Amino acid sequence: MPSGEERIIDLFRPMARHPAALGLIDDCAALTPEPGTDLVLKADAIVGTVHFFADDPADDVARKALRVNLSDLAAKGAKPIGFLLSLALPHDIAPAWLGEFARGLGGDAEAYDCPLLGGDTVSTPGPVMISIAVFGSVPTGTMVRRDAARAGDHVVVTGTIGDASLGLRLRQDATTAARWGLDPAQTQHLIGRYRRPQPRNVLAEAIHGHARASMDVSDGLVGDLGKMCSASGVAATIEAARVPLSDAARVALAADPTLIEPILTGGDDYEILATVAASQLGPLQAAAAAAGVAVTAIGRIGDGPGVQVFDDDGKVLAFRQGSYSHF
Amino acid sequence: MPSGEERIIDLFRPMARHPAALGLIDDCAALTPEPGTDLVLKADAIVGTVHFFADDPADDVARKALRVNLSDLAAKGAKPIGFLLSLALPHDIAPAWLGEFARGLGGDAEAYDCPLLGGDTVSTPGPVMISIAVFGSVPTGTMVRRDAARAGDHVVVTGTIGDASLGLRLRQDATTAARWGLDPAQTQHLIGRYRRPQPRNVLAEAIHGHARASMDVSDGLVGDLGKMCSASGVAATIEAARVPLSDAARVALAADPTLIEPILTGGDDYEILATVAASQLGPLQAAAAAAGVAVTAIGRIGDGPGVQVFDDDGKVLAFRQGSYSHF
Repeated sequence: MPSGEERIIDLFRPMARHPAALGLIDDCAALTPEPGTDLVLKADAIVGTVHFFADDPADDVARKALRVNLSDLAAKGAKPIGFLLSLALPHDIAPAWLGEFARGLGGDAEAYDCPLLGGDTVSTPGPVMISIAVFGSVPTGTMVRRDAARAGDHVVVTGTIGDASLGLRLRQDATTAARWGLDPAQTQHLIGRYRRPQPRNVLAEAIHGHARASMDVSDGLVGDLGKMCSASGVAATIEAARVPLSDAARVALAADPTLIEPILTGGDDYEILATVAASQLGPLQAAAAAAGVAVTAIGRIGDGPGVQVFDDDGKVLAFRQGSYSHF
Repeated sequence: MPSGEERIIDLFRPMARHPAALGLIDDCAALTPEPGTDLVLKADAIVGTVHFFADDPADDVARKALRVNLSDLAAKGAKPIGFLLSLALPHDIAPAWLGEFARGLGGDAEAYDCPLLGGDTVSTPGPVMISIAVFGSVPTGTMVRRDAARAGDHVVVTGTIGDASLGLRLRQDATTAARWGLDPAQTQHLIGRYRRPQPRNVLAEAIHGHARASMDVSDGLVGDLGKMCSASGVAATIEAARVPLSDAARVALAADPTLIEPILTGGDDYEILATVAASQLGPLQAAAAAAGVAVTAIGRIGDGPGVQVFDDDGKVLAFRQGSYSHF
């Protein structure tokens, strides 16, 4: 009779279709790298009650766990190869939850062409924790780094900023939607952006071809831009009014102008923040438009340290904290 | 002022000396694989109260987290390249605990030549959890797999078996040592084997050169041998009397002969279980002796399925469960 662990492995076996996974029969994977490429490596974990709600659909939890990692590959201009999964589960986890989790993960492994290469399951007295190590590839020496921004570059972001941060607030307090004047579709849009990030892997090639520096926005736009500036030894100025917002976020912001702070610093965006030379802005935006994703210029890189955010009147906005920190 | 997360990254920066780690300035590592090699990939997590005690020294916890992964590389005949760390910490984690954890991890990163390549820290309402993804290298196509055992091969193990399983029992109940007639040094030896595994990475080259099939013993010798047989489509017979035991384990077993079951099925050994062709047994043992580690032949691979364990009188020993399963 198979053990509980073996039954769990059987659930995940269908998404281990990469030859390196050896059908999950071995405890290690053996990956033959493509000559002339570098491996882009990243590990990121999500924890129940911290990164998702205990009653979030298991399908969404699985997709979020993989997508927060895929988002890094997109920002680095890398093509996904596959991932390792470390899953910590309470003893009393419902088989139905696990089945739905595996279906969600398998769906994304397929959709993003990022198969399971191996992993491990352990029990925990704490909440569900999913730790994923993801691997991508770029031509040798060409990973798009965060420390390469130069004075004069445009600062750009993909998609829209702040949705997930507002979605989290809506999820925490059901009375919020009425206070912000959101209709049900707008409310669901924002909550969906928190639950199920949309990493911009369709833009990886365009970022690889046109960006100077790049990272994904996971901890808040202002703070993450600060990290990029600090790594690159440059400064940045952005204009709040140019930061792309969804219709739902605009409605909420009109109802409560103080929301500009969680929008710009709240995190969980999983959009790409990049800097591009002036000559590359047009080509990047054209490539992104062809892929169906907006790339918006929101400011410029300058000399000296720090990030300044200007409002419509040209005044500098001050925030308590530029980005989310777990500690 | 640096955030809490940035202060944690600073603690780990000294062990990120591999060029692929980019000094932990980026959120991804960029690894240029050596031409002609495969990457051996493995992820394994340990959880407080499940794999270690809440009051175990942080130094040991860190080393165990890395070593359970290094053990897999050793068994696959792979040389360590580096690792990604995913760390989930309670909000109230003591800075002293973290400092000691980082020192232990840095010590092993150095000792095993396995530097930190990147990682991520999150908060959790549950116990400390350390998830590590480790990378090793072997010449292309030569990872020593678990599904390659053949009828006629010798079954061998490194070091001694059962110590950690007995050490766990000693740790759980302080009256056990007296019942087993152990002196303090023997007691500490067994507890030490639980707390701080000794992965056999010094044997990786010998395993690579001489073993047919190989895996590490993490869930219990009998059950892990069963997995190897099942993967290889073969059977195995081993003799309990030939399984190498430490002096401390011998004393305990003499006091309580029923301990043969936790010794052979209890897990946490982190020794290598391998099969070798008859012609390779001598060379493997000579290479292992040169490295200061015993390799002991304990049985043979045969046709048909299953694992049989014989006692001194040639009778088959029956166990409730061949190996540990979390679920």
